[in-house]
Amino acid sequence: MKEKLNVAILGATGAVGEAMLKGLEERNFPIQELHLLASKRSAGKKVMFKRHEIEIEEADLFDFHGMDIVFGAVENDLAEQYARDIVKAGAIFIDNSSAFRLNPLVPLIIPEINQDQIKEHKGIIANPNCATILALMAIQAIQRLSPITSMVVSTYQAVSGAGTKGIEELEDQVEATMFNQAVQKKIFPEPIAYNVIPQIGDFDEFGYSKEEMKLQNEGRKILRNESLLVSCTCVRVPVIRCHSEAIQLVTEKSLTRQEIEDAMKNTLGIIYMEEGYPTPFECSDEDMIYVGRLRKDLTHDHGWMLWCCGDQIRKGAAINAVQIAEAWLKMNH
Amino acid sequence: MKEKLNVAILGATGAVGEAMLKGLEERNFPIQELHLLASKRSAGKKVMFKRHEIEIEEADLFDFHGMDIVFGAVENDLAEQYARDIVKAGAIFIDNSSAFRLNPLVPLIIPEINQDQIKEHKGIIANPNCATILALMAIQAIQRLSPITSMVVSTYQAVSGAGTKGIEELEDQVEATMFNQAVQKKIFPEPIAYNVIPQIGDFDEFGYSKEEMKLQNEGRKILRNESLLVSCTCVRVPVIRCHSEAIQLVTEKSLTRQEIEDAMKNTLGIIYMEEGYPTPFECSDEDMIYVGRLRKDLTHDHGWMLWCCGDQIRKGAAINAVQIAEAWLKMNH
Repeated sequence: MKEKLNVAILGATGAVGEAMLKGLEERNFPIQELHLLASKRSAGKKVMFKRHEIEIEEADLFDFHGMDIVFGAVENDLAEQYARDIVKAGAIFIDNSSAFRLNPLVPLIIPEINQDQIKEHKGIIANPNCATILALMAIQAIQRLSPITSMVVSTYQAVSGAGTKGIEELEDQVEATMFNQAVQKKIFPEPIAYNVIPQIGDFDEFGYSKEEMKLQNEGRKILRNESLLVSCTCVRVPVIRCHSEAIQLVTEKSLTRQEIEDAMKNTLGIIYMEEGYPTPFECSDEDMIYVGRLRKDLTHDHGWMLWCCGDQIRKGAAINAVQIAEAWLKMNH
Repeated sequence: MKEKLNVAILGATGAVGEAMLKGLEERNFPIQELHLLASKRSAGKKVMFKRHEIEIEEADLFDFHGMDIVFGAVENDLAEQYARDIVKAGAIFIDNSSAFRLNPLVPLIIPEINQDQIKEHKGIIANPNCATILALMAIQAIQRLSPITSMVVSTYQAVSGAGTKGIEELEDQVEATMFNQAVQKKIFPEPIAYNVIPQIGDFDEFGYSKEEMKLQNEGRKILRNESLLVSCTCVRVPVIRCHSEAIQLVTEKSLTRQEIEDAMKNTLGIIYMEEGYPTPFECSDEDMIYVGRLRKDLTHDHGWMLWCCGDQIRKGAAINAVQIAEAWLKMNH
């Protein structure tokens, strides 16, 4: 294995692609060659990486041969379109879309939880949904003490979960409200300024949105807990960055507060707050997941309640992907 | 019983007091004399009611004799201070504070649910907490089909729940953010602009905030369901008016979707949305409680999930109080 790798980011100009680039720089990922790929529209633009200017290349014209790792930060259709070429060219595709997450041949990885499964990859490794990463990071310490049987989760999701356009829409609407102008809706189904919207993605025949089913579906796979039951309400809130979640969970065995707190304090990637609580404003642009307000659930003997916040673009997407690459690199060294 | 009543509003200049005044006007409550009471600071100011100017009177100097109904829109300490005088003077005190809600001698009333208990009053009738009114209005149809055994609730509560000062704080912070100025905290424990805060009121020894325990405590009394279990996470969100709640509930008996929908459609005071969902922005300044996103809970055989929105100053406080007065009047006619 080489000491330094050839790396490409597919979708380098979006919010997650930019955060991946930043993550690679901050974490000093060992890079030989770096290619930033985007649509024709963005090709030719220049971006800084470690004090070097890098020109955006057109993804459609790019030859993936020679690449070791390709990070995917594009929508499902494009991820599916490029995946074959990337894998055929011998590179590993660490993909942030939901296209391959439930594919049994594709490991779905949160490195702190199941990095041992990386070795089962056949060319593609999937990055979980952002709200899923946040919830599972927050509850992983409990899951190690006793299998979790069910969870009821309500989310408070930032507008940047819908990309930079989400941030623009909130800012435009706030400004319009301030100056008594009409509020324009573009990407969110309802006004988001001074509002909350209980819909993220289309609804299925049972009334759940796509986003709401991800936590159960992806959670079962990542935790290797096929009987996990999750009922979720995913809600968009007028926060710029960083998702929050109110979680109720039930464990198989009875646990004490002390056991859970000890386990939380010894869990990588989370900051457990014994006193106080995190808010999305102060957890923005951080890589750690913050957990607070742990308390006994009043509805169930084996139940617990907690509150968590995490920057969904960083640990919820970009940083988790870089961590997957780091773990893969370590395994192959 | 007289045809028209002598009415006073204690705390007439606050958000709830103003909404009570508006409610009395809109609903054409039969008023003979109307007295608007507030602190010395507000005394002498003038307020419009049915195209008449009414002067604010100083509460401390007011003699409650001759009043039929006094609406309370003040904090607990003041409600407790004035209650004795009001009752002694022979008036009925319909109080929006939490001071008397759990007192066994005081009926706690949501007219659509338990107006029959009004007749048990001994001079004081309590208005429930706003988040409690919203949740119970939304689930009352289900509770009539089968007792509800437990609920897990996450709230999305508007800043006006903290009064007009809450609205000002959000607006000031949004403006400060827009002009890159420092954000000032006054009444909320964390910044509320572009943030959510999982704390409303102080925390008890078990880690629950006061607001979070109200739904269980008041819910048991209003529904006459002493074994009801509720685990709540109360969260302040940057919405001006109108609270929202994501509710998971479990019923004793198994119910069908059809039964619940039929019951919802035949319930006074709520608008059930079979398709789509309400948001707080569009439900602001409305008296109805909106319920949507009814779906089977995936974690429990007898469980259901729903989403509801309601203006917490109107039905959540002022209008509910006026409705109590109307129901009381009807009983005494």
